[in-house]
Amino acid sequence: MLTKNTIKHINSLRIKKCRDIHEQFIIEGDKLVDEFLHSTWGITDVYATKKWIDTLSPVLREKTNQLSEIKKDELKKISSLKSPHNVLAIIKKSSFTLDYDELSNGLSLVLDDVQDPGNLGTIVRVAAWFGIRNIICSPDTVDVYNPKVIQASMGAMLQVKVFYCDLVNFLKEFARFKLPVYGTFPDGKSVYDLPLSPAGLILMGNEAQGLSEKYFPYITEKLFIPSYPGEKKGIDSLNVSVATAIICSEFRRRKP
Amino acid sequence: MLTKNTIKHINSLRIKKCRDIHEQFIIEGDKLVDEFLHSTWGITDVYATKKWIDTLSPVLREKTNQLSEIKKDELKKISSLKSPHNVLAIIKKSSFTLDYDELSNGLSLVLDDVQDPGNLGTIVRVAAWFGIRNIICSPDTVDVYNPKVIQASMGAMLQVKVFYCDLVNFLKEFARFKLPVYGTFPDGKSVYDLPLSPAGLILMGNEAQGLSEKYFPYITEKLFIPSYPGEKKGIDSLNVSVATAIICSEFRRRKP
Repeated sequence: MLTKNTIKHINSLRIKKCRDIHEQFIIEGDKLVDEFLHSTWGITDVYATKKWIDTLSPVLREKTNQLSEIKKDELKKISSLKSPHNVLAIIKKSSFTLDYDELSNGLSLVLDDVQDPGNLGTIVRVAAWFGIRNIICSPDTVDVYNPKVIQASMGAMLQVKVFYCDLVNFLKEFARFKLPVYGTFPDGKSVYDLPLSPAGLILMGNEAQGLSEKYFPYITEKLFIPSYPGEKKGIDSLNVSVATAIICSEFRRRKP
Repeated sequence: MLTKNTIKHINSLRIKKCRDIHEQFIIEGDKLVDEFLHSTWGITDVYATKKWIDTLSPVLREKTNQLSEIKKDELKKISSLKSPHNVLAIIKKSSFTLDYDELSNGLSLVLDDVQDPGNLGTIVRVAAWFGIRNIICSPDTVDVYNPKVIQASMGAMLQVKVFYCDLVNFLKEFARFKLPVYGTFPDGKSVYDLPLSPAGLILMGNEAQGLSEKYFPYITEKLFIPSYPGEKKGIDSLNVSVATAIICSEFRRRKP
């Protein structure tokens, strides 16, 4: 049985400010909750139907010390999905520290002000697929703990660390490694032809504005995804998550 | 001034059944309406603020015979956007005929039951970028005239013809060209290594279920996008629009 206060608290976590204050966020869905239960993240509360609880192994049941059995109707009151699954969990936010040594040994993504939750979630999923472990975001990028981001990332955030910081300071600091910093520009070189480094940064810009000019001085390589057959005829860009995926795929294709 | 009946009619076009009956759909936004005005599609009505009308060239004004000036508050009543732009237009649906000669001379996409409007819109945009002119969808695929599909496709549907038909019949008919039919499978060959034909079909499946078994007999080449560094660790798939983009990019990279 859910109290009014519990319902109020859970629903408040849809708002970034409340997630920040409580250092909590919501995940939903049988598969996603299962993946978090198998991870090292802290599970604060689990609200589930009898059906879900019955399938829980004793080991995992021990991990979910705050397990509440609720009815499907009650789940609807706290879910942000049209068709709620069988379980919703509250997770404690993790805080990571930027590990510059790790960054200097691989590829990382840098996002300037990506606004759409679906895009960020998809980018996290792309990063996980292509073995990119770090995403550094400008402070105005949509919150990775937004329920729509989590839904779109499909558990990929268990494998990718997402940071928010001032990107100019970050890029200044990163410059000491003398590694390539890639950005996409209409006058860039074809991503299919340019030599691509196995370590460095890939900068992706806002959906409408692209990359902010203040980052231009830190970009060492200008990229472009060629359209086909070369004329654009009105389509002036690709969706940012799609462009990120194509570029990451090109970097990974070159690796043995 | 919008009448109640007009508001009711426009809002009804958010529902597929009503779009089918009236053979109309809605587009929104200054850029998108401008692109449709420059196209051969039939513009039924345009509802716009004075600001938008003032910037309209005489040639385009002539094309918009049913132009109604409305206030921003009125636009909110008929818009499906959180922040409406300055214009909304009703467009007459076009009916295309499948041109098998055109299909046999290039790449086309075949979609099995793609459900998310954002995914279909993004796929249409990817197709336009990579010069793919035809998308053939199973009847249960989300409607391309759904406002969310149109919003995500960003005008790309002016360059891509989208068909709905029984895919088994279509694939049987297409088989006479003896061209490759590509599908993605976990046990497929790496898309980076497989020879890719400049003509043929690329089949993409539903977000959760993948490709339906009934299409397997028609697939001649099994593809796979390798993850990196080769182990998947819980991420078992990419978003369908992202996978489509990576595969299309690989096909186009090979072409001079």
